Amino acid sequence: MRITAVDVRDVRFPTSRSLDGSDAMNPDPDYSAAYVVLHTEDGEEGHGFTFTIGRGNDICCAAIEALGEYVIGRDLTGPADLADLYRALTHDSQIRWLGPEKGVMHLAAGALVNAAWDLVSRRAGLPLWKYLATLTPEEIVANVDWRYLTDALTPDEALVMLREAEPGRAERIAEIEREGYPAYTTSPGWLGYDDAKVVRLAREAVAEGYTQIKLKVGADLEDDRRRFAAARSAVGPEVRIAVDANQRWDVDEAERWMAALAEFDPWWIEEPTSPDDVLGHAEIRRRVAPVKVATGEHVHNRVMFKQLLQAGAIDFLQLDAARVAGVNENLAILLLANKFGVPVCPHAGGVGLCELVRHLSMFDYVAVSASMQDRVIEYVDHLHEHFLDPAITERGRYLAPAKPGFSAEIKRESLEHYAYPDGPEWSEN
Amino acid sequence: MRITAVDVRDVRFPTSRSLDGSDAMNPDPDYSAAYVVLHTEDGEEGHGFTFTIGRGNDICCAAIEALGEYVIGRDLTGPADLADLYRALTHDSQIRWLGPEKGVMHLAAGALVNAAWDLVSRRAGLPLWKYLATLTPEEIVANVDWRYLTDALTPDEALVMLREAEPGRAERIAEIEREGYPAYTTSPGWLGYDDAKVVRLAREAVAEGYTQIKLKVGADLEDDRRRFAAARSAVGPEVRIAVDANQRWDVDEAERWMAALAEFDPWWIEEPTSPDDVLGHAEIRRRVAPVKVATGEHVHNRVMFKQLLQAGAIDFLQLDAARVAGVNENLAILLLANKFGVPVCPHAGGVGLCELVRHLSMFDYVAVSASMQDRVIEYVDHLHEHFLDPAITERGRYLAPAKPGFSAEIKRESLEHYAYPDGPEWSEN
Repeated sequence: MRITAVDVRDVRFPTSRSLDGSDAMNPDPDYSAAYVVLHTEDGEEGHGFTFTIGRGNDICCAAIEALGEYVIGRDLTGPADLADLYRALTHDSQIRWLGPEKGVMHLAAGALVNAAWDLVSRRAGLPLWKYLATLTPEEIVANVDWRYLTDALTPDEALVMLREAEPGRAERIAEIEREGYPAYTTSPGWLGYDDAKVVRLAREAVAEGYTQIKLKVGADLEDDRRRFAAARSAVGPEVRIAVDANQRWDVDEAERWMAALAEFDPWWIEEPTSPDDVLGHAEIRRRVAPVKVATGEHVHNRVMFKQLLQAGAIDFLQLDAARVAGVNENLAILLLANKFGVPVCPHAGGVGLCELVRHLSMFDYVAVSASMQDRVIEYVDHLHEHFLDPAITERGRYLAPAKPGFSAEIKRESLEHYAYPDGPEWSEN
Repeated sequence: MRITAVDVRDVRFPTSRSLDGSDAMNPDPDYSAAYVVLHTEDGEEGHGFTFTIGRGNDICCAAIEALGEYVIGRDLTGPADLADLYRALTHDSQIRWLGPEKGVMHLAAGALVNAAWDLVSRRAGLPLWKYLATLTPEEIVANVDWRYLTDALTPDEALVMLREAEPGRAERIAEIEREGYPAYTTSPGWLGYDDAKVVRLAREAVAEGYTQIKLKVGADLEDDRRRFAAARSAVGPEVRIAVDANQRWDVDEAERWMAALAEFDPWWIEEPTSPDDVLGHAEIRRRVAPVKVATGEHVHNRVMFKQLLQAGAIDFLQLDAARVAGVNENLAILLLANKFGVPVCPHAGGVGLCELVRHLSMFDYVAVSASMQDRVIEYVDHLHEHFLDPAITERGRYLAPAKPGFSAEIKRESLEHYAYPDGPEWSEN
């Protein structure tokens, strides 16, 4: 299973043309992937990507190319190899200067680490979530970088936690395969949609079985009140409506804005301020209670999540499959969340994030938290048609992926059509 | 003053051959610059750079190239243009996804912002620190991005602070030109040096007039105790000896290690843990008192510094001229530090950091804090020969730079000799 080549592609979808994905900070995203394929000497493949929203995707591709040198020649067979690869990609002392463990280089490391897990779980013939569930507590703990975490969680505590959840793994796997995992949908709530579209999509979501939807807020307060009122009327009082400010506010502004939305009963406020602002989130949480606070899609590593938990800054932890350094760092984040009793509700949408995060939440249920209480995975109904193993929801729940691997693979024809800047979608439009 | 071209160069110095710059996390750095020159239609130039320690310098160059598109065609004449440029480089919604405001893209923004300030202050015929001292409080406040800061410091409070320091600006400028600004030196303390070299260099530093030196620690406790004991004997009890762990420890480990070094009377412990770990620093500070805590060279933006101050996590704030988004973000950081009464002791060394940070500390004295109490700028005696306006210390103090600009310009022959990978230093060795 020696890696012989690392193939990197810049792929961009022109989503800004329809304002899908528009929010208060991101008015015109072109959902993109800095996409990587690892090739082995025996013809196997591992796929991974960094998700971006357009410009800068080329810089991520360059970073993946540069880090690819640390992957070529490596034998990737089992969990110990994955632990070694993760450390090699995040601990090179010269590369580390550019972060450490944040920004473009860390996004690139995540793409490669996820591609490696895709490769290894494909070879095991299992979807990633079930492959992870075959690992022993010791193997899981050995795949975490414990540096900077031990004041909140030690490897020994994590072992105890994982051993406690070992009984019942098989039953929970069967339950997931039978019933799936709860989802919520953001599709009705993009800021670029008019009220009628928001109402129509919100009604459709509830009719499909969703019990939680999400609206984007933060650009204009009167618009937000009008849209929220319309959505609340459309879905009734029982459906949870989360709101998402995409980092738009300072602390005082978050308090004022949320006070003005309180009458519509928001379930959580997501990314009220800078993702770097642990103490700001904690202060906002105190001020907007009983509305809950959620964040994580831009939280750049396990050290930041550790502090959000230590500071009591969040009610829901929204890990992202492709922001941190891949599966390994997300194992640390799942263990930290469980230690602090905070439900993980992953960020998804974009390109392929739904495909990836379902594996992490399902593994969390099987082997870490053993709970679905107040846990939901974000679902957005865009761009799944480009994936070989697309995310599927039914009656408001994610179905369990069954194909071997991490579901990151994009169809060959999509990679070619949306190649940037030379694919036909970009060169002919 | 319209910008017509952005010229980017990858320049690397083979410092790993002599172990200059070696520490517990960075055993073999090759000090490097992702170097940029802005060219104007009338033949003027602005110089700036991102400092790195080798691998990945090419990725920073690619990021500066990409952001260069936001600079070309711009008219850069006065402070309002600099505020606009800073916002354009840090607020592009698609680029922002790659951070926000951290890692490679933020380092690249810093290089370009600093080059723009170099250009504008050259044109004004003033060294940057004196150019900054010509700005009104309103102009300074308008160059800060206040988003995410207002729970700690508002623009109005900053205006009051700056107006209070306006009387006496001229006297303090004259004082700096006469007497310079206090420095300390890290040159004796690199981890790769043997004890005899540490002792010899420590003695020399004191003989030259330094009252503070710094030792690298964190790789091996017995080595650290032996080296610290030798250095303390060499310089006597009056000279301050700071120690620097370069992020090597977790919280408990920092406490244990510092307890074992306490008998040698360390002045501060620098970077005891992850630069992202605000709460970890705060806890370490409580545990190691009365030893002080310093950090900042890897703190990626003003939001992180805000929290380090809010949490009472640091005794000294070590801003870096080329880590954050240039002069504009460092103005915010100087104002925040002053609000919280924390002395700024900039990080320097590397390539050209001494050349840059002296301007920021001198401006701080003239127009913000109006104090040199417990304030020292790091000095390292490497690589200054490559600069047209090199940092000079005498009797343990930085002399005031007098040439127009920000002192970032590297000699043309050095740019060519150390060009990576094609310059003679690299292609012939």
